[in-house]
Amino acid sequence: MHAGRPGSLNSTQATTAFDERLEEALSALISEVEASALERSDDDLPLYGLIRYHLGQLDERFVPARSDAGKRIRPRLCVMSCEALGGDGELAMPIAAAIEMIHNFTLIHDDIQDRSELRRHRPTIWALWGTAQAINAGDALFALGHLMLNATREAGVDPATVLDLSTELHHTTLRIVEGQVLDLGFEDRPEVSPREYLTMISGKTAAIIRYACLAGATVAGADAETAAHLAAFGQSLGMGFQIRDDLLGVWGKPEQTGKPEADDIRRRKKSLPILLLHDRISDADWELVSGYYRQPELTAAQVGEILTLLDRHQIAPRVQAEVQRWHDDAVAHLAAAIPDPAARAPLEALADALVERTG
Amino acid sequence: MHAGRPGSLNSTQATTAFDERLEEALSALISEVEASALERSDDDLPLYGLIRYHLGQLDERFVPARSDAGKRIRPRLCVMSCEALGGDGELAMPIAAAIEMIHNFTLIHDDIQDRSELRRHRPTIWALWGTAQAINAGDALFALGHLMLNATREAGVDPATVLDLSTELHHTTLRIVEGQVLDLGFEDRPEVSPREYLTMISGKTAAIIRYACLAGATVAGADAETAAHLAAFGQSLGMGFQIRDDLLGVWGKPEQTGKPEADDIRRRKKSLPILLLHDRISDADWELVSGYYRQPELTAAQVGEILTLLDRHQIAPRVQAEVQRWHDDAVAHLAAAIPDPAARAPLEALADALVERTG
Repeated sequence: MHAGRPGSLNSTQATTAFDERLEEALSALISEVEASALERSDDDLPLYGLIRYHLGQLDERFVPARSDAGKRIRPRLCVMSCEALGGDGELAMPIAAAIEMIHNFTLIHDDIQDRSELRRHRPTIWALWGTAQAINAGDALFALGHLMLNATREAGVDPATVLDLSTELHHTTLRIVEGQVLDLGFEDRPEVSPREYLTMISGKTAAIIRYACLAGATVAGADAETAAHLAAFGQSLGMGFQIRDDLLGVWGKPEQTGKPEADDIRRRKKSLPILLLHDRISDADWELVSGYYRQPELTAAQVGEILTLLDRHQIAPRVQAEVQRWHDDAVAHLAAAIPDPAARAPLEALADALVERTG
Repeated sequence: MHAGRPGSLNSTQATTAFDERLEEALSALISEVEASALERSDDDLPLYGLIRYHLGQLDERFVPARSDAGKRIRPRLCVMSCEALGGDGELAMPIAAAIEMIHNFTLIHDDIQDRSELRRHRPTIWALWGTAQAINAGDALFALGHLMLNATREAGVDPATVLDLSTELHHTTLRIVEGQVLDLGFEDRPEVSPREYLTMISGKTAAIIRYACLAGATVAGADAETAAHLAAFGQSLGMGFQIRDDLLGVWGKPEQTGKPEADDIRRRKKSLPILLLHDRISDADWELVSGYYRQPELTAAQVGEILTLLDRHQIAPRVQAEVQRWHDDAVAHLAAAIPDPAARAPLEALADALVERTG
């Protein structure tokens, strides 16, 4: 395993080895592109500095730093999918890095769209340097991600396959953007059904996790049926991942999630817990909840009232049952793709860990 | 010539034939992608409707319309470059369409960044639907442009060449974004040199014109030296194009440019005329001009004073001399690439027309 045990989420040492390798791949490309960038003076904002800041490689004065760069589930899944199918994880590494870049381009733009001032405990790009330059940083990272992907050709992947991977990644990006369009629209809608919500997250969150698994399988040379099962594994894993996230957004422990208590309720997010609650409570109670949601801000007492309603209607176990359902679906596709239990064990362990994750 | 005389900028009929073909290519891809998009209700904003609105195919209620879609110089140059080198213009058409999409993605984001409320006499996407959704529209158009490019493979271009074209287009996009980062930064700087300004426009404007010519040459199967000359032709053409634009931004006729008189001065733009003026006037006069530029708005009298200074120092002919210089450089590269005067005549005519364009 060249890529340093990508699956060992809980082992600090192994995690570091994978992260180092990923970091190396990201940095090498950014340095190369920066070297041929338009000349700029010290007065000009360093575009690639903004990107390195977002990726946790620089601090806000552009001095080298090592900040929290996230769990990097997506690139891990790409390399693990490749290895589980007998492929060379090293070959999947540039694609894994490309996926991480594309994911982060969407985060930079999401932070602008959601007016989020913090990401991984640090100020977001738009909060520090303004919306206009943050749009630029995201656009550049979009292009960088695809340069990274196209470079797998030099690593030995044949051009036709690279082109397929490129086309699929652009389709994936369209699903992400379509999901984001829906999500932003939901904020202004009085009613959102659980079904509409699941459609939204199938694009916004699950599409790129699907892509990560599919791309890993493709580089491993998987046949069409196996690749389709890996893709379905990733799609369902992504659904469960997001729904677990929704659960943590309401009931997660601040010291584990890094977010305030009941943050999604406070921020009036129409995530799955609230939508499931809607289906079960009386019209009068829903009037109360949706009245609170129409306010610009919720008081602590109002948040408490909503938490009581969620508790009374046992929404937390219902949400977790959804997580479990998607997990089981994911694991079934995984078993169909990889009959050998030992070969699929690392991916299965990761899927199991995501069901119970607390942060 | 399959593509309907792309170079005939002044012939309404021929222009329409090329535009129809381009429109067809753009529409076909958008329809195809829209057909597999995430399901949405009538309450949800139509992402691809925003894009079609921007491209002039729909009005703001998403009813089919035919609005001004711009001069489409870039896709024209791509097809013309291909044909001038003996290639099949039809093969270059998807790349031409891809270039138009990438150019328009940057325009959608530029309009947000510059807070421009009008583009081609219609409200911009962000002005109608907000910044967040306009970011989404630009991101989706970025992906669509590359899907269009990747599809040239189905038209018969070999995968390795398509991949080269893809990589080069991503590098081009990075140059555009780097230029935009500089341009936004210039607004807050007290001093910008003409050299810094030329660096900025070499990315923001010229890079994609360069790419259009290079891509056309590549699809025509040009050798490396010929392709490099075509690229240099495009780069210089783009420089002249932007500088002529700067001239029209100060001295253009409103009925021809569609913009108010002396619009760039009114908007306090640090374009080439002002930077050349700086090099020639007394410190006292410069204090006056830069004092005006530090104000939030200029009065008509102040605009008049600056116009008088520009006139006194003969800035208009100096700017036009720069346009001519870049034109001559462009045409020299063109002659080096295509020795046969008849073969290069359409491109040369387009280059000549751009030097004198009034709108």
